[in-house]
This record gives sequence, structure tokens and C-alpha cells, in this order.
Amino acid sequence: MKFAVRSHLSYHIAADSTLIFNIAVCNNSVQKILQEDLQIEGAADWDQQTSGELDNRYVRVNAPPGQVRIRYKATVELNAIEQSPQAIAEVPPAQLPLEVLPYLYPSRYCESDRLLRFAETEFGELVPDYSRVTAICNWIYENVVYLSGSTSPHTSAFDTATERAGVCRDFAHLAIAFCRALNIPARFVSGYAYDLHPPDFHAYFEAYLGQAWYLFDATRLVPRTGLIRIGTGRDAADVSFATLFGPVTMETMDLQVDCLTPGERPQLSDGAIAFVESSRDSI
Amino acid sequence: MKFAVRSHLSYHIAADSTLIFNIAVCNNSVQKILQEDLQIEGAADWDQQTSGELDNRYVRVNAPPGQVRIRYKATVELNAIEQSPQAIAEVPPAQLPLEVLPYLYPSRYCESDRLLRFAETEFGELVPDYSRVTAICNWIYENVVYLSGSTSPHTSAFDTATERAGVCRDFAHLAIAFCRALNIPARFVSGYAYDLHPPDFHAYFEAYLGQAWYLFDATRLVPRTGLIRIGTGRDAADVSFATLFGPVTMETMDLQVDCLTPGERPQLSDGAIAFVESSRDSI
Amino acid sequence: MKFAVRSHLSYHIAADSTLIFNIAVCNNSVQKILQEDLQIEGAADWDQQTSGELDNRYVRVNAPPGQVRIRYKATVELNAIEQSPQAIAEVPPAQLPLEVLPYLYPSRYCESDRLLRFAETEFGELVPDYSRVTAICNWIYENVVYLSGSTSPHTSAFDTATERAGVCRDFAHLAIAFCRALNIPARFVSGYAYDLHPPDFHAYFEAYLGQAWYLFDATRLVPRTGLIRIGTGRDAADVSFATLFGPVTMETMDLQVDCLTPGERPQLSDGAIAFVESSRDSI
Amino acid sequence: MKFAVRSHLSYHIAADSTLIFNIAVCNNSVQKILQEDLQIEGAADWDQQTSGELDNRYVRVNAPPGQVRIRYKATVELNAIEQSPQAIAEVPPAQLPLEVLPYLYPSRYCESDRLLRFAETEFGELVPDYSRVTAICNWIYENVVYLSGSTSPHTSAFDTATERAGVCRDFAHLAIAFCRALNIPARFVSGYAYDLHPPDFHAYFEAYLGQAWYLFDATRLVPRTGLIRIGTGRDAADVSFATLFGPVTMETMDLQVDCLTPGERPQLSDGAIAFVESSRDSI
Repeated sequence: MKFAVRSHLSYHIAADSTLIFNIAVCNNSVQKILQEDLQIEGAADWDQQTSGELDNRYVRVNAPPGQVRIRYKATVELNAIEQSPQAIAEVPPAQLPLEVLPYLYPSRYCESDRLLRFAETEFGELVPDYSRVTAICNWIYENVVYLSGSTSPHTSAFDTATERAGVCRDFAHLAIAFCRALNIPARFVSGYAYDLHPPDFHAYFEAYLGQAWYLFDATRLVPRTGLIRIGTGRDAADVSFATLFGPVTMETMDLQVDCLTPGERPQLSDGAIAFVESSRDSI
Repeated sequence: MKFAVRSHLSYHIAADSTLIFNIAVCNNSVQKILQEDLQIEGAADWDQQTSGELDNRYVRVNAPPGQVRIRYKATVELNAIEQSPQAIAEVPPAQLPLEVLPYLYPSRYCESDRLLRFAETEFGELVPDYSRVTAICNWIYENVVYLSGSTSPHTSAFDTATERAGVCRDFAHLAIAFCRALNIPARFVSGYAYDLHPPDFHAYFEAYLGQAWYLFDATRLVPRTGLIRIGTGRDAADVSFATLFGPVTMETMDLQVDCLTPGERPQLSDGAIAFVESSRDSI
Repeated sequence: MKFAVRSHLSYHIAADSTLIFNIAVCNNSVQKILQEDLQIEGAADWDQQTSGELDNRYVRVNAPPGQVRIRYKATVELNAIEQSPQAIAEVPPAQLPLEVLPYLYPSRYCESDRLLRFAETEFGELVPDYSRVTAICNWIYENVVYLSGSTSPHTSAFDTATERAGVCRDFAHLAIAFCRALNIPARFVSGYAYDLHPPDFHAYFEAYLGQAWYLFDATRLVPRTGLIRIGTGRDAADVSFATLFGPVTMETMDLQVDCLTPGERPQLSDGAIAFVESSRDSI
Repeated sequence: MKFAVRSHLSYHIAADSTLIFNIAVCNNSVQKILQEDLQIEGAADWDQQTSGELDNRYVRVNAPPGQVRIRYKATVELNAIEQSPQAIAEVPPAQLPLEVLPYLYPSRYCESDRLLRFAETEFGELVPDYSRVTAICNWIYENVVYLSGSTSPHTSAFDTATERAGVCRDFAHLAIAFCRALNIPARFVSGYAYDLHPPDFHAYFEAYLGQAWYLFDATRLVPRTGLIRIGTGRDAADVSFATLFGPVTMETMDLQVDCLTPGERPQLSDGAIAFVESSRDSI
């Protein structure tokens, strides 16, 4: 399926500042950029780079006082591979590729080290395969209220496990923490989301199962086939859509995601479908 | 039933220090002290006082360098009133006596304000009576591991809700926090416990239901009819068995609880029995 | 000096609810109520009570759906005793009245048990008298930013010690926690404040020194001689101006404090002045 | 200078387990391995790998029930470049290489996002160069007590900022968090340390200044010229010397570090000396 994504952002700059954006979509084997355009107004200078391992793309803008306006748009072709989850087992630590080990360790917003017994109590007895990660998502969906404004940028999985309210990033952080506590590598993904209302950047997660990273979203807000990846990391600390150095204030944010494929639309699939990238991207 | 309790404590004092003990048993309508003896060696001076509202008894010892030895023993008659829990309902805030309101508020180790949604999710749908507090105890018993050394004096209900391990005071703190989060007044009790192995000071809790404070113990370690009350408070901060000011180190602690009533022994009762003090003590 | 205080509060009630207010001023030897009036509209019923030890006054309102309006006003005569702080020493635990001991213990928002080394490092070497509490206030004033909206009702002294921003209640909580960590009993006070802009309920604290409770306010926002006490407690959990049970939303809050004494006004005094209540009230 | 390092570790394995070790020293331009030997007894199988970016070396051991014994030894030549710190300035975010950005972000044990005001208050006015990181180390040395057993594997910089006690990893975490809060990239290093008593794995940190990573150690326990690097990461979560999957218990740990260069020994240098790796390794 083809999608057109667009984000317009504007910021007020009170003094010389640096802004690092993580808003350009990722280009890989299952997500091809067909067209792309980035316009930046109000910058003194800017540069763009792709980080090595995870293909995250960063735009750094150095700006004098005034207003910075970013206009990004891209046309993307998504080729998610759908699989039956039946045969997708967890991988024991004895066989995990060493490159995925960092996604087993606790991170700023996913303190899996403090959730070991919680995860073991709730999910320890379940079959160690794709269905266990689905069970984690279900538990979160049923026990955590999606509530705008209920959390702050400092909120972590440890908080959410008890406070039971949050937004998409909190849902992803808690799911990741539970997975890691069960020795399932898990990582954070930021992206554009088709059919998200109101339009916003979205956060979800991937778990490493079988030999690939599978996509999950405990919020059930949007179809997973309509998620266009921006960045991948250990948690939100790695792929914030904007990191601001200096007296910078956001003024406007306007996002849009359209499906361009005639007659086709992403659907909320039941839990029995998986999406997998090819091996190169899976690491 | 009659019980003999005994505690021998000794401390090394490196420099002039003050020690405040909360080890003498409470004297009230359901727990009568028949005999009592307190011996203190190594003190420069000491005084004893009973605090107004809750009848907690404090012994303050001012000690020079050396060793302080405390030997306390008492014979106590317990007259717990057993009731059927069937008719014991929660009391809505509209009708709660104002004196019990402080036991609705969060305290150091019972951060009920951060557990509102957790409590609501797990226990919100249950019948608002005695059985709901029993359900809280059951949940804790089933989801939290009793594990010596797993927690510190800083551990609070918020930690235990997620870390899922603790000792008797952690079990009591979590239960109290859940109760308060559901608008059920709850308070912390320290005591001597018949049939506790190894012998130690024990911690449990009371919930205000009907028109009285009912005794609960989520640890299921000992019969509730064999609990001899020392102190009552908002949480462990109020009724620590020893509060030490100065360079003081505990050297030995030796507790013993015997049942003196011929042919009778406290029994682990099923959940269908309640213990209630008379009205004067209930506040 | 005489003051007129007034508070008008209104709430939207979506379903049968209970509201407990702590807005009526305290009546004691240094603060005499000359006139007082309380009007409540929209209540099914309400009652008023004074709690034993601390003379806190609670108004409980049971309300059906609709609007509740509270109009409170009082004329108060303040007779604060000003002393020279020179001769006011801390009281060692060996000599503290047992009634003040609870104010040495950690509470929900004042986790003094986790601030022992912090307090010792910053204030441990100072002279153990009135000037040490002043030093604590100065440290907070210099290191913590007063910033509306920077904290939540869950914020505690442990948070503020590191996050370094807060409002009046956070300033009071941190000061109380530091005091307790140094074995100085300290308690939380809520009140009306002359010359506070914008008008709001204020929070400050008292430390037990010499033989009385002395008033401190680390915010330096208002003159201490213009503080009219409402409630006293271990921390904000005890004396919240409104505790709401049910689907209740505040609609308006309007406070006013006027000084009625001709030719006199409370002044921001330098640190060398103390305010002390007589012995009966000091406990 | 040449060093011989040795570590002997043994573990009891109660059931099939996986152990991942991070104990082999790093091989790079300033630290050359001259000889090396690794012996593993009791393993079913094991493999060894070097992770891409940071040259961390992992040994994974899959073990059946019984005992696993690891014997590692290496001879290493250290060629630290000592520089005068005078000309080493901080690098503003506008000019930082994108590869170092992840070391600006908060991580599990270094919650820099919650220490912004603390760092700004204490260090914000200082000259933005090498001396500011030295000031951070000095502050930690003066305000945090080095105390074995005072912390747990869950302790983070946010805790230590207030609790003011810890061991080498806590000192490193707090320093890293302060640096990141000031926009100085900082990362965690584990290593062998000459002259550390009792011998143990050591933790310290690097800050990115000028165009390289400079070595700091707030503990002042050992000479920085005698630190032999094992692993580098965001914090201790990345380079734990042993990560255990399964019922595994450490039985013995025996470390030794000798200096082999005749007539030369690492010295505790004053703060005016820096150690820098060449550009390739600096990233």
C-alpha cells in the first residue's frame, strides 16, 4: 500500500538554538520512499544524517532568533509481510543474536529490572511464543486507561505499571519493559499512523521473535498495516521527534497521513496477523 | 485466651544516644494486661508515656556509651470478638466519623494517591463490604512473594505494587494503600504474634468497616486470634519498635510468645471470621 | 493586627458526592476569631467538626448533582509573639515532648528517611538552633525555583530535592523533610496569606525549637505576620483545603485577605524575628 | 605501560542457563592486547563476539547444571595520551557529531531529564570546558559517601543525587547524568583497575569534549593511567560484567591487576591531566 505523509511544524526561537528532528521516514526493504521533500525556513544552517545501525534519520537545525518552519512530506510504499503467528516462537538467550541483546537491557523509560516478578506473575506461565506478547498487549489494553495529559515526559513503565493511565508512548514503554523482563528483546518505534485521530506522531513497539522483529501496538488505536516508521530505539529517549537545545517553543504542529492505493485501506486486523521485515532490517 | 509475651533486646551504644521503643503491649478493652515487667540496664535515664489517641506506649531511653539491655514481659488476656463478616459493610465518606478520616489519606509508605486506578481496576467492581478487603488480602497473598531481605526500610506500597516481593510490613502497607485508594480507612498495627517462625515483631492492618476497626493479615503467616497489639498508626513510620538517635547498633533480639490457656490454641481461621474491638478503642 | 479573610468556592457535582473542606480558620490563643460566617448552597446536608489535637476544622458537605457554593468569611485578630531568635535552641530527642515525636517521622510528601545524608551534608555542621532552620529556608529559596504548574499533587520532597522547582507546598515539604532528617520536629501549615498575588491558599511550615512551634516560609512570598492559619498537619495530605469524593469539578475559587488595623500592615521581616504561640497551642 | 590482568570467576548452575560475560579487555589504538587467554570449564558450548560500534566483547556461555569456571588473563599495553586540559572546550549541540548524540539522552541509571535544574543550579555558571566536568567530579566526591553495600543494582543517579551514598557505578552514573543535563555527552566505562583494594571490576566515565572522549573518575580511588577498559556503554545496563539467565549463583570472584613496566607505576595525577583516545576510537 502507498501512503502520503506530511508534517508541518513551527517553532518560536528566542535565542540561538539547535533543534534535532526525527521526523523523516525510514527507508528500508519493507518501507520504500518513492518521493520526499523537506523544506526548512528560518535556519542559519542545517544538516541531515542517517545513524548507522538503525537507519534513523536526524535533521539538525541551527537557528537564530525568530521562527523556524519545517515542512516535510513523503510518499512511501509499505510492504509489510503478514505471517501466521502460530509458528513464531520466542528465542532463548542461548540463541539470541548478540546484536539484539541491548534490547533485553533496561532503559530510561523501561525499567524491566524492577518488573521481573510482576511480569513473571502475570505472564510467566504463558506459552513462550508470539501469543505471549499479544497477551502483554491485551493486559495493557485492559488495565491501562488511554488518557491524554495523564502523564509527563518523565513518566516511565514503572510508573505506568501502577498508575494505570497514559498515552501511546507509555503503552509502548510498559509493553517493552514486560517483554524484556521475560527475556524477550523489545524496542520502541515512532511513526506516522494512518487513521489516527487527532493526527499526531505515534509510538508502538517491536518484539524479537523467531528471527525477526514483529510489530505490536497495545493501544489498538490504528491498524498496524498503516504504520509508517520514523525511528527505532531503546525507548522514547532515542527517537523523540524533536529534541530542543535552547529557548525554543513549539507553535504549531500539523500532521496528515493519506492512503494512496485505490480501493485498499489498512484494516484493524485481529491479533492473529504478524508483520515482519526482511533479515537485514531486522537487526 | 491468655498469652505470655517476652522480648529481650540489646544494643551497642558508641556515644550518648536516645532510643525510643514501642514494644510494650497496648492495654484496652479487648486486650488486658494482667502482669507486666520492664527492665532496662545501661540507661542514664528513661521515661515511659502513652500517647493520647491511640494508646501507643513509648519508652524513651537515654544512654551513655556501652550496652543497653531491655527485658520486657507481659501476660495478656485477649478477648477478640468474632463476628460473621456477612453484615459488615463499608462506610461511605458521607458517614465516616471525622476521626477516621486521617486513615483515608496517603502516608509515607502507603501512597494511595498513586494507586487509585490500580485499586479501581482490580477491586472497583467488588461488593463494598468486608469481602472486598478480604479480596485485597487474597490478591496480595497471590501476587506478592514473602521474601526476607527483599526490601528495605525505604520500601513503600508503590514499590511493592510493582516489585511484588516483601515482608510483613510491605504486605500491610500495600493492603492499606489499596484500601485507602478505595475510600476504606485503613491503619497499620504492630504486634507480637503467636506461632510466628522465626519469632519476630509482626505487622498487619485494620480496616474501618461497619462501626469498627477489623483486623486483617495478608501474609497468612499466623492466626489472627494470636496477635497481641503493640502500636497502631498510619504506617510503619508511626510504630517502629525501635527508633534510634545516635550511633546505636542492635546486638541481639529475642522474642517469645506462649499461649497460656490450657487446651486452647489460636487457629488459622478461614476468611469468614472477623475480630472487632469495642467502640471506645475503635477510634 | 486584625484581618478579614474570605473564600468563595464553587463546584460542579455530576453525581451524589461528599466534599470535605478545611477552609475555616483556626481559633486559638494567638489567632482569635472575632466574627465568622459560613454559607453553603446546594448541599443535601453538611456538618462541621473540630479535630481533637490540632484544632483543625472540617466541614463535610454531602451534595446531590448540581452546583455547590461555599462562602466563608471571618474576622481574625492575630497576636503573634515576636522573639529574638538568638536564644532559641534545637531540642535533642532526649528531651523532646513525646507529643511532637510524630513530626520527626517521615510522611507521604516528606520522605526525611531518604534525605538523611543530603541534610547532613548541607546542614549538618551548622549551629543547632533557630538559625539552622533559617539556613534550610535560605537554601531552598536559592536552589529551588518557584514555578506554577511545575509540580503535581503527587510531588514529594524527594522529587523536589532533585528537580528543584515547585510551589509553596513543595517548598514547605522539602523544608519539613530537611528538618526531620536533622531531628528537628516540623509540621505543615495551610493558611490564608495577606498580600499574596494572585490570592490563593498558602502553605508554610513550623519547626519545634525551644519549647514552641516557630513559623517559617521558604518562599519569601508574603510577610509571616500576615499568615492566618487554617490547618496543621504532617504534610499536605492532612490539610488539603478540599478533599473530594465523587465526580466533582471545581468551577471557581475566589479568595481575599484584608488588613483591618488602621495604619498597620504586615511587613516582610528580616530573618531575625520569630513567631511563637503560647504553650497550649504549641503541641 | 604494560599491565597483566586476570579474572577468575565461578558460578553454581542449578539448571540449564546462559551467562553473558563482558570481562575481556577492549582492543583499540590506545590499549593493545599483547597476549590473551580465556579458559571456560563446565560449559555445554560458548561463543565470543565483538559488538560493532563500541568494540565491546561478549562471551556467551550455555551451561548445564553444575559449576562453570571462567579464567581470563591478558597482557595489555596502555598508551593513554596525556594532554593539558586548558584548551579542551565543550562542544555545543550545533556542532556535536551525530554519533555522540545518544550519549546526551537519559538512560536507565542516568535520568538526566530529571536533573536539569539541579545541574544548572550547581554547575550552570561554570566555564564550559574540561574544568566543568572536573567540578562535577569534585562535587560528587565531596557530597557523596563511598559506602559498600549502600546501594542496589536498581539504584540510579536520581536516587544518588539525594541519598548521597554509593559505590563506583553510582558515582559514574551521577556524573554522567549531570554531564548530559548540561548537554555534555557522557558514557559509562567498565574496566580493570590497577591498585584498587579490594580488587574488583571498576566503573568510571568519559565525557565528550573537544573532539574526543576524556576519562574521568569521581571516586578518586585509583590512578586513571592504570584503568584498563573492558566495555563502554550508556550506563551499567550495557556493560554488566555478567548477565545471568537462569538459576545461577556466583561462587567466587578473584581479580588481579599487575603493572609489568619496570620502574614505572600509575600515579594519582592532579586534575590537570587528560587522557584521550585517537579519533577512530573516540566515537
